[in-house]
Amino acid sequence: MSFQHRIQTRYAETGQDGIIHHSSYIVYLEETRIEFFKSLGCHINLLEQEKIFCPVVDLSVRYLKPLHSLEEIFVEVTVEKFSRVRLCLNYRILRNQLCIAHGTTSHCFVNAMFKPIAIPQDFFATLKAFQSQEKILTSN
Amino acid sequence: MSFQHRIQTRYAETGQDGIIHHSSYIVYLEETRIEFFKSLGCHINLLEQEKIFCPVVDLSVRYLKPLHSLEEIFVEVTVEKFSRVRLCLNYRILRNQLCIAHGTTSHCFVNAMFKPIAIPQDFFATLKAFQSQEKILTSN
Amino acid sequence: MSFQHRIQTRYAETGQDGIIHHSSYIVYLEETRIEFFKSLGCHINLLEQEKIFCPVVDLSVRYLKPLHSLEEIFVEVTVEKFSRVRLCLNYRILRNQLCIAHGTTSHCFVNAMFKPIAIPQDFFATLKAFQSQEKILTSN
Amino acid sequence: MSFQHRIQTRYAETGQDGIIHHSSYIVYLEETRIEFFKSLGCHINLLEQEKIFCPVVDLSVRYLKPLHSLEEIFVEVTVEKFSRVRLCLNYRILRNQLCIAHGTTSHCFVNAMFKPIAIPQDFFATLKAFQSQEKILTSN
Repeated sequence: MSFQHRIQTRYAETGQDGIIHHSSYIVYLEETRIEFFKSLGCHINLLEQEKIFCPVVDLSVRYLKPLHSLEEIFVEVTVEKFSRVRLCLNYRILRNQLCIAHGTTSHCFVNAMFKPIAIPQDFFATLKAFQSQEKILTSN
Repeated sequence: MSFQHRIQTRYAETGQDGIIHHSSYIVYLEETRIEFFKSLGCHINLLEQEKIFCPVVDLSVRYLKPLHSLEEIFVEVTVEKFSRVRLCLNYRILRNQLCIAHGTTSHCFVNAMFKPIAIPQDFFATLKAFQSQEKILTSN
Repeated sequence: MSFQHRIQTRYAETGQDGIIHHSSYIVYLEETRIEFFKSLGCHINLLEQEKIFCPVVDLSVRYLKPLHSLEEIFVEVTVEKFSRVRLCLNYRILRNQLCIAHGTTSHCFVNAMFKPIAIPQDFFATLKAFQSQEKILTSN
Repeated sequence: MSFQHRIQTRYAETGQDGIIHHSSYIVYLEETRIEFFKSLGCHINLLEQEKIFCPVVDLSVRYLKPLHSLEEIFVEVTVEKFSRVRLCLNYRILRNQLCIAHGTTSHCFVNAMFKPIAIPQDFFATLKAFQSQEKILTSN
């Protein structure tokens, strides 16, 4: 199962070297991840209203080609693996169908005290159900 | 009464035109305002723990000279006026003692429902006490 | 003549008070302005390749209602006035057709040395031609 | 050889979950790296004036403890390894002498066309000279 999300890079995301700042990619991954979760019925704002949070435990990005302002990219996210307490995602950032960066994030779920808790039951079941499917979802 | 806060501009705050992005100035004003409040005994994190928030109601900035990355600036804030429910601040951004931008912000205080409330008693008293003083405070 | 641009607010644009940070609105105005210019045949990246820049000279925003993450807004921009050397824009930010913030920006055009120059001929002519029209353009 | 840089986290860098957004750490690493380079006589703005850029090729961050606004952190950077064309750095983010995150970045040097070039001669020599030293440098 993979999910694709379209983003247009912003002028404000560039740096004085003329390209998109490398920290902006982290925001692209997050935006895509949140839309992916939503497509699986897991709305981050509803989750956080219940005082359940899904922080990033680790992340990595490899930058292959520079990105410029006002370019259209598609961020593709796939579930690498997950357990009752951990979720690992892979990402590819595509421009004109060419991969210009890829990355990973790992997540846990925590309560209001930032103590680890199990992945919410419904979300876990949905991940389980979708795991074997080969379909590609898109957000926008 | 005025308060000065030193900031060094960041590489990440530049844009592809080679200068500091105009939205970064808004963050400089906020950082200075929060340090100013702290110098008056009003810690924003303590305030927000009590579910009291101090949102920006309006702001304006006039940009006189471009700013570059890794430049040292001093943001000077003064209280223009305040009432039981509104606080108006003026700012000047100085580089090498030259004013390169100035601005204003207005604030109210709100509760957890974002309903307006009176300025916290202690903070109001401190503003009152400092109002007539001519001294200049600095943060760092 | 007015121009409307759709934006979805991002999780990363929120602050610890739970609402969209006030500096993010500045980026929304810029994104809308750039799309508006593009709709008038003025592509900012082409302009900047010719070493012509369009900095913000001043701006103001008035915040009426708090914005939350993952909300859909429409930013409406209109030309307030313009001369050979200055362009003044008005903005309204709408959520569910309700205005939740409005603002203004003024701009000049400068060369690579950041010295003021006249508004590019073609862009000036287009602004002139569109000025009297009543139509509403949209970007996305 | 290691280098330490002090940073105070900003209110604007928080998210609605009440902690510093994970993308802000990337900016902390960059700010520290730029100060580290400066301490070695390599000023990024001078470098970029000569149309030499030092993009991030890959990065990783592991988040151990949440960070809050207005906290003081020290970012420690060490050179893991370097060749004529690649520089690998390690980072630790410390709060009250406790490591709350660590990370890595790899860099190459490129020309105005973003084509890889060798590390500038002087910078390479300085890295070489400092490599075996055990001292700790600090920026602020």
